[in-house]
Amino acid sequence: MGFTGFMEVIQTIKQMREAASKVRAAGKSIAFVPTMGAFHGGHIRLMQKAKTLGDITVVSSFVNPKQFNEKEDLNRYPRDPERDRLKAEKAGVDYYFEPAVEEIYPPGFLTTVNVSYLSSKLEGASRPGHFRGVTTVVLKFLNIVSPNTLVMGYKDAQQFTIIHQMIEDLALDVHLVGVPTARERDGLAMSSRNVLLSPEDRDKALSLNRALKRVHFLVKKQGILHTGELLQAVRSAINSSGAELDYAEIVNRTTLEPVDHVMRGGTYVLVAARVGGVRLIDSTRI
Amino acid sequence: MGFTGFMEVIQTIKQMREAASKVRAAGKSIAFVPTMGAFHGGHIRLMQKAKTLGDITVVSSFVNPKQFNEKEDLNRYPRDPERDRLKAEKAGVDYYFEPAVEEIYPPGFLTTVNVSYLSSKLEGASRPGHFRGVTTVVLKFLNIVSPNTLVMGYKDAQQFTIIHQMIEDLALDVHLVGVPTARERDGLAMSSRNVLLSPEDRDKALSLNRALKRVHFLVKKQGILHTGELLQAVRSAINSSGAELDYAEIVNRTTLEPVDHVMRGGTYVLVAARVGGVRLIDSTRI
Repeated sequence: MGFTGFMEVIQTIKQMREAASKVRAAGKSIAFVPTMGAFHGGHIRLMQKAKTLGDITVVSSFVNPKQFNEKEDLNRYPRDPERDRLKAEKAGVDYYFEPAVEEIYPPGFLTTVNVSYLSSKLEGASRPGHFRGVTTVVLKFLNIVSPNTLVMGYKDAQQFTIIHQMIEDLALDVHLVGVPTARERDGLAMSSRNVLLSPEDRDKALSLNRALKRVHFLVKKQGILHTGELLQAVRSAINSSGAELDYAEIVNRTTLEPVDHVMRGGTYVLVAARVGGVRLIDSTRI
Repeated sequence: MGFTGFMEVIQTIKQMREAASKVRAAGKSIAFVPTMGAFHGGHIRLMQKAKTLGDITVVSSFVNPKQFNEKEDLNRYPRDPERDRLKAEKAGVDYYFEPAVEEIYPPGFLTTVNVSYLSSKLEGASRPGHFRGVTTVVLKFLNIVSPNTLVMGYKDAQQFTIIHQMIEDLALDVHLVGVPTARERDGLAMSSRNVLLSPEDRDKALSLNRALKRVHFLVKKQGILHTGELLQAVRSAINSSGAELDYAEIVNRTTLEPVDHVMRGGTYVLVAARVGGVRLIDSTRI
């Protein structure tokens, strides 16, 4: 199946593995997009990118409980499975893997994959265990789907760095491709959590992107490379909006170590803030 | 190559992956035996078993620093790479993967795979981090070799249970096959560490197997199923020999939880002791 243009929805590991194995046996390549559903334009872009990278596109939709450190956040995570399936089919996805929680984590599940150090800083410091949940589920999905290419967004830049490190360390035979952050017309980074923002919260939320744009301006137009100065601008842009800044850091994009000076191409600016109880992140590469 | 009857020795991940991928492309199956070298009869049996289970046999030889919690133990671990290669070739191995430590753990390696709970008890309690080192390296080797079948000894019964749990939890597409413990003529479980035993130590070391045989006798001939009584016999057999008992437990073979009564087929007896500074383990299934 899957070669017919119709999307096949799969719920079990066994069926997903069999489908993937048939694709490979037919000499075709697989591009895989892991998601937590609640699709927005950013997800669609990942799927479109995947279609250009492999013969067959597999998308998983799984709200992974292990990457939520707060139960409340898990419970209110937006879900709309029927709409998601329609959107994925429209995007040209071939296989849609939508397992139940017990299929992925049966009783007695004990194994975790951890990328130490990178996983405990920044987002990981604010959300203990979050990245361990991400790496564990992504590795399991890679084992089930065995794609040639894994497609992920650059928005969660730390996540991207961590997955890249896991792939290298464990010698996984998959090519990781990043897709730039999709943004709303007003510049807000697309996120499934944006639907939880009130109109006034949204105004505050825009300060994250504004702060990142300010950094680009300061670096490119004013030649400021000293990160102390750049971070001051970021913090004041976010704080003055009324958003509650969690962290703002300028780091080496491989080690996630804070840097004194921007090294063009190798530096991430990472910000996280709370707006009306919703946690938002944004990032940019310089 | 490898179809010619000559053993190919491979040092790099890239070459090993390419070789494995050619084998699979030719429609042949791979049986894989991970080892730390220092081959004894038990290893040869694993290789022989592997030859019956796959078209192509891959053996890795890698003294994994991450599974040694004591540096001294790592340093004095017996090594004889040339003799090992000859033995493997004689056993009919097709590919012999012998990477350097930096090939597997390059600078900046950060990822660990852990099977919680099972890894921290028994042998894991005495050797903190040991099983995390084992699961991390076994997963990495599985990713490189991508075998159809993984062949491991039952001697380290806890290790076997943990690897089985990891395979299930992470949905690894590999079939795990266990091989019964090979023993010397006097009953001592074959171990690379046995060469470190003096003649009088060896006498003490024999108490481990004697204790396990005693359990079988008590269960089969005297119908004793109560583990308290059985463990008393184990402890007295080992203690009276002069070996330093580390632990003796009778556990459920899946959960490694101590059991009150032997359930035939589902129970492991696990013992560990120190003899003249050498740590020995042995086990049996009832």
